[in-house]
Amino acid sequence: MRPSQRQPDELRSIRITRGYTRHAEGSVLVEFGHTRVLCTASVEESVPPFLRGKGKGWVTAEYGMLPRATHTRSAREAAKGKQSGRTQEIQRLIGRSLRAVMDLGALGERQITVDCDVLQADGGTRTAAITGACVALHDALDGLVAAGRLKTSPLRDFVAAVSVGVYRGTPVLDLDYDEDSDCDTDMNVVMTGAGGFVEVQGTAEGQPFSRAELDSLLGLAEQGIARLVALQKAALAGNRS
Amino acid sequence: MRPSQRQPDELRSIRITRGYTRHAEGSVLVEFGHTRVLCTASVEESVPPFLRGKGKGWVTAEYGMLPRATHTRSAREAAKGKQSGRTQEIQRLIGRSLRAVMDLGALGERQITVDCDVLQADGGTRTAAITGACVALHDALDGLVAAGRLKTSPLRDFVAAVSVGVYRGTPVLDLDYDEDSDCDTDMNVVMTGAGGFVEVQGTAEGQPFSRAELDSLLGLAEQGIARLVALQKAALAGNRS
Amino acid sequence: MRPSQRQPDELRSIRITRGYTRHAEGSVLVEFGHTRVLCTASVEESVPPFLRGKGKGWVTAEYGMLPRATHTRSAREAAKGKQSGRTQEIQRLIGRSLRAVMDLGALGERQITVDCDVLQADGGTRTAAITGACVALHDALDGLVAAGRLKTSPLRDFVAAVSVGVYRGTPVLDLDYDEDSDCDTDMNVVMTGAGGFVEVQGTAEGQPFSRAELDSLLGLAEQGIARLVALQKAALAGNRS
Amino acid sequence: MRPSQRQPDELRSIRITRGYTRHAEGSVLVEFGHTRVLCTASVEESVPPFLRGKGKGWVTAEYGMLPRATHTRSAREAAKGKQSGRTQEIQRLIGRSLRAVMDLGALGERQITVDCDVLQADGGTRTAAITGACVALHDALDGLVAAGRLKTSPLRDFVAAVSVGVYRGTPVLDLDYDEDSDCDTDMNVVMTGAGGFVEVQGTAEGQPFSRAELDSLLGLAEQGIARLVALQKAALAGNRS
Amino acid sequence: MRPSQRQPDELRSIRITRGYTRHAEGSVLVEFGHTRVLCTASVEESVPPFLRGKGKGWVTAEYGMLPRATHTRSAREAAKGKQSGRTQEIQRLIGRSLRAVMDLGALGERQITVDCDVLQADGGTRTAAITGACVALHDALDGLVAAGRLKTSPLRDFVAAVSVGVYRGTPVLDLDYDEDSDCDTDMNVVMTGAGGFVEVQGTAEGQPFSRAELDSLLGLAEQGIARLVALQKAALAGNRS
Amino acid sequence: MRPSQRQPDELRSIRITRGYTRHAEGSVLVEFGHTRVLCTASVEESVPPFLRGKGKGWVTAEYGMLPRATHTRSAREAAKGKQSGRTQEIQRLIGRSLRAVMDLGALGERQITVDCDVLQADGGTRTAAITGACVALHDALDGLVAAGRLKTSPLRDFVAAVSVGVYRGTPVLDLDYDEDSDCDTDMNVVMTGAGGFVEVQGTAEGQPFSRAELDSLLGLAEQGIARLVALQKAALAGNRS
Repeated sequence: MRPSQRQPDELRSIRITRGYTRHAEGSVLVEFGHTRVLCTASVEESVPPFLRGKGKGWVTAEYGMLPRATHTRSAREAAKGKQSGRTQEIQRLIGRSLRAVMDLGALGERQITVDCDVLQADGGTRTAAITGACVALHDALDGLVAAGRLKTSPLRDFVAAVSVGVYRGTPVLDLDYDEDSDCDTDMNVVMTGAGGFVEVQGTAEGQPFSRAELDSLLGLAEQGIARLVALQKAALAGNRS
Repeated sequence: MRPSQRQPDELRSIRITRGYTRHAEGSVLVEFGHTRVLCTASVEESVPPFLRGKGKGWVTAEYGMLPRATHTRSAREAAKGKQSGRTQEIQRLIGRSLRAVMDLGALGERQITVDCDVLQADGGTRTAAITGACVALHDALDGLVAAGRLKTSPLRDFVAAVSVGVYRGTPVLDLDYDEDSDCDTDMNVVMTGAGGFVEVQGTAEGQPFSRAELDSLLGLAEQGIARLVALQKAALAGNRS
Repeated sequence: MRPSQRQPDELRSIRITRGYTRHAEGSVLVEFGHTRVLCTASVEESVPPFLRGKGKGWVTAEYGMLPRATHTRSAREAAKGKQSGRTQEIQRLIGRSLRAVMDLGALGERQITVDCDVLQADGGTRTAAITGACVALHDALDGLVAAGRLKTSPLRDFVAAVSVGVYRGTPVLDLDYDEDSDCDTDMNVVMTGAGGFVEVQGTAEGQPFSRAELDSLLGLAEQGIARLVALQKAALAGNRS
Repeated sequence: MRPSQRQPDELRSIRITRGYTRHAEGSVLVEFGHTRVLCTASVEESVPPFLRGKGKGWVTAEYGMLPRATHTRSAREAAKGKQSGRTQEIQRLIGRSLRAVMDLGALGERQITVDCDVLQADGGTRTAAITGACVALHDALDGLVAAGRLKTSPLRDFVAAVSVGVYRGTPVLDLDYDEDSDCDTDMNVVMTGAGGFVEVQGTAEGQPFSRAELDSLLGLAEQGIARLVALQKAALAGNRS
Repeated sequence: MRPSQRQPDELRSIRITRGYTRHAEGSVLVEFGHTRVLCTASVEESVPPFLRGKGKGWVTAEYGMLPRATHTRSAREAAKGKQSGRTQEIQRLIGRSLRAVMDLGALGERQITVDCDVLQADGGTRTAAITGACVALHDALDGLVAAGRLKTSPLRDFVAAVSVGVYRGTPVLDLDYDEDSDCDTDMNVVMTGAGGFVEVQGTAEGQPFSRAELDSLLGLAEQGIARLVALQKAALAGNRS
Repeated sequence: MRPSQRQPDELRSIRITRGYTRHAEGSVLVEFGHTRVLCTASVEESVPPFLRGKGKGWVTAEYGMLPRATHTRSAREAAKGKQSGRTQEIQRLIGRSLRAVMDLGALGERQITVDCDVLQADGGTRTAAITGACVALHDALDGLVAAGRLKTSPLRDFVAAVSVGVYRGTPVLDLDYDEDSDCDTDMNVVMTGAGGFVEVQGTAEGQPFSRAELDSLLGLAEQGIARLVALQKAALAGNRS
């Protein structure tokens, strides 16, 4: 039995709130159970130096966690003067995931920065961030189309992410903090709406995992992501709050 | 006429939501109009080195702004590797303001860190932060009393803050971003519930200000803070969300 | 009775020595009793990026303290690799104070940096720095006029600063270190020669202060600054050393 | 046809040279074709603060690349003042991989740091590093046993790593730089000698990859790692150079 | 002819003023012509970690230059967030020079930090710093003896320094800025009162120098340092200012 | 008797291996006994800002030490976030030494960076680095000539370096780690092939040294460097490995 009482293939309660803050071109609060991440997409009419004059755009991400998003307070990275290796890993992952569904040539010489800030953490912050960031990016690009700055949105597909793991011998979907802390294998999977894999990152926390376990985790992830993409579409069909 | 259509002595719509996040000992979302600041109070059973073995506690604050809390995106301080002078000034101000109403001896060898993170900025983030932080600190201390770790709360009074300024010749209360950007004199005032001054920080942005202007700004601030303290008390009388 | 034996409204012995070092366009040693600050103004024929091409200039300040300017040695900021929050607060204050009396448009696309380095500290280093920096800036601008690079000096007025505080119940002027360490309220006031307020920064170190105390501190500061401006004028009437 | 003329399931020429430098407790030069990484294991009789007094040890890794290990010179991280996100990701991966085969309790309160420094890069530096680091760690632990400081080696299994990718539609093993630069999907796989998975990190560089591609990449990796573990064993059976 | 009109073996006008500031245990302003360096010696009753419990003391030095000590303003190291390589070289040189004449065992578990801050630079700041630092250290140690904390001073000899160089073919003593900028070979020599060499650092700025030139430079330095040591002794024979 | 059993004027076994790595324009492994330094010269078709548009080039050096090049592991500078004062001193010395034999005007607007990374340390790393760097630079420049980008090599002479010291009263050549640790005076000497001095850096580690000792150390260094230059020439006469 999972600590969360969920079925092995059951997602937490997912909420996607668009228009959560007013200044950003896309602003989404995404909730995976108690995990809450604010994703804002900011459009800038210039590109980083390595892309100047190449006629294409860039999408990048930054990730942060409020000091008391966690059970015990963690030191503020701005005060420590550097981002941890974990933070950098996560923001690189989010950026790659979003670029996987973008036509950067069609974006033109613009950069979109998606900031993913964790207001409350309960496991799965990086997968929630990717799932919310895709919706914020969608809104920002639709805004460029509505303003006549782009003909069509350069977003080619949806992208969403979920964690899977082996909890006391059973493969389970979408781990919360309690499950994640007591889990042998932890895998984050990022997929497109069309069902292609973008990222697979599996780690044995304790025992190495077998090929059979890996296969069944991938199956769970495929199911979960299909549901997340449906929720992204539903959120985009509704009004911004 | 103020851009916000408010009377010169009219506060913005103020909301104080307790229990906004689940992990912190005190967690308050404070809203001054569109300005929204999340204030969390974290209790730690140790004190910084300069206080060890002295039998008294400490209260400190940290301040941050999400990159897209503002009209245009500002660089993330954690990525730049340092906190700006403005950030440090503000967090020092919040810390001093809170300590002004604390009996640090009665707190014992504990530290409470209040993190004030701006989710959305529309002027007056530091005054909103102080006003919300006082409520978060209040909740954290009540929790220590409820848990039997303190006999009574070492908070001796309320503390709240508001900005005042001379806008096109008229002294006005609680400036929003549009008013603040077009203002000759800007003053932040921090006061206790008993009406004592804790901090007065006035700056001439354009023309130096006269003693008469200074006097009328102080009068406006006294009124505004009395109302803010009443709102703090009302929030504490209600339930945590 | 004040530890310094001074009357409540009595300044320390003030000395302003122009031409203290040879390379800077303006170089002033300012002494408020045992507090000694070297203020040098450096002219540069370019402006920071945010002002390029706007046809106006900039005045900025930097502040430092020699490691053994103080009673016990403080760590060297260059060795620690960052400036403290206090240092940044002070240098921002000095810069704003000087800009308040400058016609930056008339300066043209030039920057003047005023470095204020404390050789010996005995309280009031920031107010001494502002008072000396104004004279160094005056000399640097006169040099530009003398060299035909400016028609008239863009300095519109004098600016000076003093601290005031409530010492054992009595409002007193120009606190030295011993008085400052044992003081309930401490306020730094910056004013122009014409008697306008530029900055008012009051802090309750212990007990909050009343409106009446605030009023009498402001009165003391007005008197003290009038005398300091007279001393600035006298120094400028004399020869450079 | 691969640029390297190799068969799809063919490793590059692999060399593992033990005792490459004289001071380290374990020192291995590992070569995957032109990729050359020096792995040194250093034993220290203390543990990091988070483990003190817990009776167990720690294994950690650091990774670096000489500035001209690459085709064009890259900036020295020590001169830039920080390690890149990529560097941190890699050294965290190496550390986790080594700990997956260690009995940290049996190590006692000791730390072993494995430094992996790339002398020459031609793709696959992180997989070469893990493969070489395991041998260096093995030698360092054997040294502790030989010196009577441990009864038996706390290394429970071998660990090795290889990259796999889809090159022009064909899944291939052990990509060199030319292949890696022109590859749609890139996956790094870390496995134990017993055939368990420790890490799986797959990234779609261009097109998302299908489940079928993922499956065939995993199969290639399994074969490659079996051969690498055989080479590790052969190296350990020989003399140190 | 030297730009300074001095004879080849002529020092600049040297002044050593003791007691220049009031807080430090030793405080000396040393002037070599227009070069002015403030040297303060601070006594601390503890030693750095690498010496704890070894029953001996330490002498170290830090060096800094006020931003406008130079002809054109140089960036403040505290603001840049690091000390330059040149600064570190110089402070290491000063520290080694002072330790060469100290009996660190006799000092006991104390550290003396000598801060050398350049108020005005005109060439030879490091040699002036060493020469002044020795006198400041002398005063600080005499203070420990006077206070009964040491029986006798652990300073075994004097140490002083001077620069020599080949200026337009002629070896000359004690170069000022104009001479130094136009000089083929530049050598800094540190010697004891007894005539032993502590440091010799010669650099060919343009043409390599011959053994004969080196010999004659060493001869000039020997003479100059003998005179500097006499001036140190004279300064110590007089009153502190 | 020296710990190394060598005669006082005997160099360690010296090896210079060209073409040690494949990407750099010049790549040399230099060995002075057990000291092994990899020197790579990288050509870049641009110059640092201070030289732009001046029609001349630049040669600079960077120095690093692998963490376990030493007897006990030293912290990685990239992880600490800064280069030590020692590292900066050494890389500045190497750069100056190489520039002393370069015709920078003839190089044109190009920069050559020589990276000297110590793989194994046993004393004398900086002198080995200079000796090897000269050969790597030679190869890189010959490459520019061979490619028709330069008519002739702008290297005007050879440059090599050696350490000398007074070991138990006897002046000896080329100290290894054991000798260096137990040595009163340590001097690094850099000379050209033509016998001119480029750098002389002597330090009394214990007792100050006399003029006579200095003279005999210089004589030993002259002999040693003549032999090193012969070995550089021999290496260049052979094939690249």
